[in-house]
Amino acid sequence: MADAGTRMGLQLRSTVKKEGIVELSLARVPTPEPKAEEVVVRIDASPINPSDQGLLFGGADMSTAKAAGTADDPVVIASIPPAVLKALGGRLEQSLPVGNEAAGVVVQAGSSPAAQALMGKTVAILGGAMYAQYRCIKAVQCLVLPPGTTPAEGADCFVNPLTALGMVETMRAEGHKALVHTAAASNLGQMLNKICIKDRVGLVNIVRNPEQVDLLKKLGATSVCNSSSPTFMDDLIAAHTASGATVAFDAIGGGRLAGQILTAMEIAANKTAKEYSRYGSTTHKQVYIYGGLDRGPTEFNRAFGMAWGIGGWLLTAFLQKIGFDAAQKLRERVAAEIKTTFASTYTKEVSLAEALRLEEIAVYGKQATGQKYLINPNKGLR
Amino acid sequence: MADAGTRMGLQLRSTVKKEGIVELSLARVPTPEPKAEEVVVRIDASPINPSDQGLLFGGADMSTAKAAGTADDPVVIASIPPAVLKALGGRLEQSLPVGNEAAGVVVQAGSSPAAQALMGKTVAILGGAMYAQYRCIKAVQCLVLPPGTTPAEGADCFVNPLTALGMVETMRAEGHKALVHTAAASNLGQMLNKICIKDRVGLVNIVRNPEQVDLLKKLGATSVCNSSSPTFMDDLIAAHTASGATVAFDAIGGGRLAGQILTAMEIAANKTAKEYSRYGSTTHKQVYIYGGLDRGPTEFNRAFGMAWGIGGWLLTAFLQKIGFDAAQKLRERVAAEIKTTFASTYTKEVSLAEALRLEEIAVYGKQATGQKYLINPNKGLR
Repeated sequence: MADAGTRMGLQLRSTVKKEGIVELSLARVPTPEPKAEEVVVRIDASPINPSDQGLLFGGADMSTAKAAGTADDPVVIASIPPAVLKALGGRLEQSLPVGNEAAGVVVQAGSSPAAQALMGKTVAILGGAMYAQYRCIKAVQCLVLPPGTTPAEGADCFVNPLTALGMVETMRAEGHKALVHTAAASNLGQMLNKICIKDRVGLVNIVRNPEQVDLLKKLGATSVCNSSSPTFMDDLIAAHTASGATVAFDAIGGGRLAGQILTAMEIAANKTAKEYSRYGSTTHKQVYIYGGLDRGPTEFNRAFGMAWGIGGWLLTAFLQKIGFDAAQKLRERVAAEIKTTFASTYTKEVSLAEALRLEEIAVYGKQATGQKYLINPNKGLR
Repeated sequence: MADAGTRMGLQLRSTVKKEGIVELSLARVPTPEPKAEEVVVRIDASPINPSDQGLLFGGADMSTAKAAGTADDPVVIASIPPAVLKALGGRLEQSLPVGNEAAGVVVQAGSSPAAQALMGKTVAILGGAMYAQYRCIKAVQCLVLPPGTTPAEGADCFVNPLTALGMVETMRAEGHKALVHTAAASNLGQMLNKICIKDRVGLVNIVRNPEQVDLLKKLGATSVCNSSSPTFMDDLIAAHTASGATVAFDAIGGGRLAGQILTAMEIAANKTAKEYSRYGSTTHKQVYIYGGLDRGPTEFNRAFGMAWGIGGWLLTAFLQKIGFDAAQKLRERVAAEIKTTFASTYTKEVSLAEALRLEEIAVYGKQATGQKYLINPNKGLR
């Protein structure tokens, strides 16, 4: 039990129940006393990324969502399709905290010099359970933001920036000279576009409508293909031929786009082939699926020779692979460029209780471009 | 033009015409005079592998095949679906020789000692244009068969044996401890089964009917799953759990099998997981597609976390990757075990002209288990 001196705080929880529903609610939990090497961060800003929504909604059909509880103590319940529920055995009946990353101010510190040095500093942190008023975390995991940076500005220091940088690093490490990105008008896509312009890396942006083409062109993108255009395949072949891109990072996942990208890469590669090879070009063509905006099945017809791969790409696996020092360099670049290359824009700032209103879920749950939410867990509570 | 001393020979040719048909015929061609380092092999046996049929039929719908010409000088014509024709731009209007591998007797040799040493020897060769009475080839490319080996016994020294060995080598090189194989009752599958028993490597065989289960069990296979069984997914999960297989080689290509294999691997991997991970197991799960027995699209629902890959696997690319010395060791193992581990069985031996009979194409074109043909290009001509 919490003693009188314990700091209590609200924490957003998601529970998948065995009868096939997800229940979202706010728990009032004691904040742990920081150990010597730990600090307590008051969370002032935490983005709702697509990567958070998988854990948050548990794959439920949010069009079935119903509200219960009160305005201050809301509860949301929604149905999970049986096929999805089957894959959730590992989390059944567990009340799980949510939120990958956040920024806030260090309000309590353990006895170690490293922890004490962070008192009062604005820091960005990664590690789950961020949709909460307070988060106890190791000092070494805190990225100190440059003076003058607000928590809202530093809230998305990890997931999108490191993913975008990780794509460029993966491209280089695997010997490709340019890359392709889908859902390219997203916050992440805009960051990647800025990185590629700054670092002079060839980037083919794939978006889904003409407005997103305009948006990226205004941001300086040279190559943008619209997948809803009747000339999409021809545009893609021309873009791959011009850029020499042979690796793609795909946020969509479902449908035929991954296969279309590989097919266009193969046609581009064969333009320089001297004689017919029945097994296609020897150029390795790769699509990494890192998201699932389209939850439907992936389908492709293998019209791209034998030198190809499709696979999953996960930020945490990438960071483990490159090791702490290389990852730290990427983190430091993010902190240094947090107001420029890695600046995020948000549609709306909501409290924890507001994040569980059905009308807000209906908006941010769409994961639409330009509809990104920021949770301020201490909004209205300080 | 050929002078009086030139050896003439029949050669099977395949031409894709721009109007969307494939034409198969026999050409009478002069055999090149061997250069110092070359020999001429009289081809006595060459298998019709699935990998030959892609080049031979050019993706045509062979149910539309019509015969023309005469019994000795046959011509076969068949229609190519428009979608397939689109991918064949590189071979339009070219009369291409066919046949990946063969065995026969060296009947003429260039002046070098290496070439001269092969005179009269029975050798196995790889390199295309093998559906022909004679093939001029570099002496270094000839694999001398052990004394007492017939050309029919040595005809399939490369494609199936090296592919089967390549799968086991790939499994080891990429850190997996056991492997999965589909269409496992094929000639290739039976070889792989023998290799794995001999080398004590775990192998999960996937076949399509109960007769094939029996066939493999009689050959000593310990793990055989029947994809037409209602308990297939449960059987596969149990087989993956028992074997720890995390890499599969798939000859089918189309349909949902690749995704089912990854899903079963993921469920098996999660059986040992200690806590729920929303991104699935961290065990990398891989399916290599090396054939296309089902030409339809590949479809999967990504219910296997983020640590997965699907990609093409091609023997020639594998051999290039491991280098000449490592490849030579594999070739020598094949020659040494050609009558045991790497023994092939054939349904029928046909001449070049017989290979172009519609009733024979109807049989070997099915690529059914136990319906494998051997071409003897000199049958009836010596």
